[in-house]
Amino acid sequence: MNKLSSSIAAVLVALAISPGAEAAEPLLVIHGGAGVVKSEITPAREKEVRETLEKALRAGYKVLDGGGTSLDAVDAAISLMEDSGTFNAGKGAVFNHDGKNELDASLMDGATLRAGSVANVHTVKNPILLARAVMEKSPHVMLVGEGAEIFAKSVGMQPVPPSYFYTEMRWKELQKALEDEKSGHHGTVGAVALDKAGHLAAGTSTGGITNKRYGRVGDSPLIGAGTYADAHCAVSATGWGEFYIRAVAAHDICARMEYAQVSLASAADEVVMKIVPKLGGDGGVIAIDDNGDIAMPYNTEGMFRGAIDAKSGARTWIFRDK
Amino acid sequence: MNKLSSSIAAVLVALAISPGAEAAEPLLVIHGGAGVVKSEITPAREKEVRETLEKALRAGYKVLDGGGTSLDAVDAAISLMEDSGTFNAGKGAVFNHDGKNELDASLMDGATLRAGSVANVHTVKNPILLARAVMEKSPHVMLVGEGAEIFAKSVGMQPVPPSYFYTEMRWKELQKALEDEKSGHHGTVGAVALDKAGHLAAGTSTGGITNKRYGRVGDSPLIGAGTYADAHCAVSATGWGEFYIRAVAAHDICARMEYAQVSLASAADEVVMKIVPKLGGDGGVIAIDDNGDIAMPYNTEGMFRGAIDAKSGARTWIFRDK
Repeated sequence: MNKLSSSIAAVLVALAISPGAEAAEPLLVIHGGAGVVKSEITPAREKEVRETLEKALRAGYKVLDGGGTSLDAVDAAISLMEDSGTFNAGKGAVFNHDGKNELDASLMDGATLRAGSVANVHTVKNPILLARAVMEKSPHVMLVGEGAEIFAKSVGMQPVPPSYFYTEMRWKELQKALEDEKSGHHGTVGAVALDKAGHLAAGTSTGGITNKRYGRVGDSPLIGAGTYADAHCAVSATGWGEFYIRAVAAHDICARMEYAQVSLASAADEVVMKIVPKLGGDGGVIAIDDNGDIAMPYNTEGMFRGAIDAKSGARTWIFRDK
Repeated sequence: MNKLSSSIAAVLVALAISPGAEAAEPLLVIHGGAGVVKSEITPAREKEVRETLEKALRAGYKVLDGGGTSLDAVDAAISLMEDSGTFNAGKGAVFNHDGKNELDASLMDGATLRAGSVANVHTVKNPILLARAVMEKSPHVMLVGEGAEIFAKSVGMQPVPPSYFYTEMRWKELQKALEDEKSGHHGTVGAVALDKAGHLAAGTSTGGITNKRYGRVGDSPLIGAGTYADAHCAVSATGWGEFYIRAVAAHDICARMEYAQVSLASAADEVVMKIVPKLGGDGGVIAIDDNGDIAMPYNTEGMFRGAIDAKSGARTWIFRDK
């Protein structure tokens, strides 16, 4: 073999082995919602939030570190947050105008573009796991309301009584919102993950907005709006859902990256800091790409968020300065 | 003024007046669903479909010709199709697994990116008009199920009894689907319009798929999946909804046009003829841009569709050869 052909052979071998053999560094990024206001965060609440975020990061990272899929890591992190009572998802979800907890969730597998989504469920302990079941055990992508609950039972998920979701903090929030005739939006949870195989996934779970009208669906359960993942990019959004729907925010970030060939950070900034605010909305996203780059822009005062990888360990943030 | 500076001045004047002063030629494109099979279309059915499409085209074009908005034209064309009993939307919608008609619709105003959507309603005569009301008279973008019906009453829309939607053709389709344990998807209606002010709008309305499970939501009511419009591009999709959701099809077509700078035809072809089929789905879209270009790709045997403008009048098509 001459020098040139041996160089060509080396390049061909490198190309052939690069996609799978060289494993990606696993990475998990999560959020517990934008819309955090400094004056409302007591030291006790900050401690609770950071502890739950850290537990969720470790639960998800354990999956990735053991060679599990990004989809399983997203499920592990989000279902822990749904169970915690800390955020506006699962236990601890906000109350709607009628004093009920009405839950939405979705997730998407970037490698296959498979997706699952549920909205307006009242008796499902872990909406993110029901979204996963819709994806894997139904021919559909999205199920809502009583139909989604009937499906949950058909796949063996035991319903919880609506009282399961009650927390005093959220009940007081509703009473205040009813007095002020206002709605509040914060506390949605989400996760994006990159696994050792280099595959991305994204998921989001929420109780929606305090004092929302019965039947309202926000961006969280909508593929493309609140949740999106493909081979190169994964996004979970949190914020004023109506504006994230109109901006098709999660998909728009990935589309800008792929078609306009801008960086993840620049695509996410454009949508979160310019397009959504121009429409009149606010909120934030967590986004990662298949190179392991992270973007976490938000245009509210704070956003509960965290990231974990082998190099830096688990980190959590609430406001810009920490 | 020398020659160069007078040329520059002329260009500046042309640039300044071009957006509004030079009115756009109004254009309306509609569909009555993909998934049309030649062997199932009798001459009587073809006549009925073409007559309804023509009526809808003329109803929508009348709005545009009179200087009305693209949004009003979309509403006029779609509500006529919903009332006709001809398509799978409004009267004549397919039956779900439980023998009920379950309706979804959405619309979007390209000029403002405002949008409205309803899903899983059973007593609303014109779901597209309820979607419009959600957009204009609620703080939300999407309302589903009983909550959407309560909202409909609150804005003065009188409910119709579920029997209103019954047609013999659809009932027989369900009986056959129940025997075969199959689902069918066709007959969704949609419209995209360009008004004299150069503004685009898009809308879609459907009964979903025959024999679908209670609570299933397809792409039609989802902004970004079945319906999307912005300043440059408007899309309404019809087909196997699950795959159109996963592809975020309507927004992806507009995103490719804007960010990858490809033509409308090329963007629509890529999504409808390559991406959705690669995922395992089928269907079609109607799409127009602010230059008045039209794309109507589909990868099924036929798609009920029509277009109208001042130059060519009203035209309808069912299969590729006519």
